[in-house]
Amino acid sequence: MERIPILRMGRLLLVTIQVDMHDRLAMTLQDDLTTRIVTDRATGVLIDISALDIVDSFIGRMISNTAAMAKILDARTVVVGMQPAVAITLVELGLTLEGVCTALNVERGIKLLEQGGACT
Amino acid sequence: MERIPILRMGRLLLVTIQVDMHDRLAMTLQDDLTTRIVTDRATGVLIDISALDIVDSFIGRMISNTAAMAKILDARTVVVGMQPAVAITLVELGLTLEGVCTALNVERGIKLLEQGGACT
Repeated sequence: MERIPILRMGRLLLVTIQVDMHDRLAMTLQDDLTTRIVTDRATGVLIDISALDIVDSFIGRMISNTAAMAKILDARTVVVGMQPAVAITLVELGLTLEGVCTALNVERGIKLLEQGGACT
Repeated sequence: MERIPILRMGRLLLVTIQVDMHDRLAMTLQDDLTTRIVTDRATGVLIDISALDIVDSFIGRMISNTAAMAKILDARTVVVGMQPAVAITLVELGLTLEGVCTALNVERGIKLLEQGGACT
C-alpha cells in the first residue's frame, strides 16, 4: 500500500510530500501521522512541500486539516520549503493555510518548533 | 521536472526516496546531491528508504554510486529506515550495498554521522 513515510527526529516528525496527493493517500497520511504523534509523543510536525510545484485547494485543505488534528493532539505543525511560485499562487487564489505556520526550510522550521514561539 | 527534494539539517543532507526510481530520476538525484554537498558544505548524507518495499540491483547500485560520489566530496552516506523484508531480500539475492553504512532510523543515522565512527 502506498504511503508517505514519517521520519522521527527527536520529538519532531518530518513528512516530505513528493507525490501527487489523492483522497486515500491523504487519509492514510493523516491516520499515520496522528498515530505517530501519539506513539512517538511528538511535539511538532514538519511538512516539507519543496517538491510541490502546485498547491491547490485540496492540498491546502489537507494540510490545514492535518495541522488541526495535530493541534488537538498537542503538536504544532510547520510547513517548510514552499516554492516562491506556490506562495504567489496561494495568495492570488486567496487560499490561506489556516492555522498553519510556515518556515523557509527544515532548519528554520525546527528552530521555530523548538523555540515554541507564536506564528502567524 | 520531477526531482527528489534534498533537505538540509545542519551539516547533513536528508533524502527520502518515495517513488520508483528510474534512470533519469536517479541521475537527477545524483547531480542535485553532489551539487548540494558542495554548496551546503555537507559532511553527511542520509538516504531514507523506509518507503521502499523492494530494493533491486538498480536501486542498490544507485545507492552505492551515490555514496561513492559523496565520499569523493568528503561526505559520508548512511542509508536509514530499511524495511526488514528488504534486508532479507538483499542478503538472499547477494546484493551488498557496497561502501554504504546503514542505520535503523534517521535519529540513529544522524548520531552515526555526528560521531564520525566507522561502519561496516
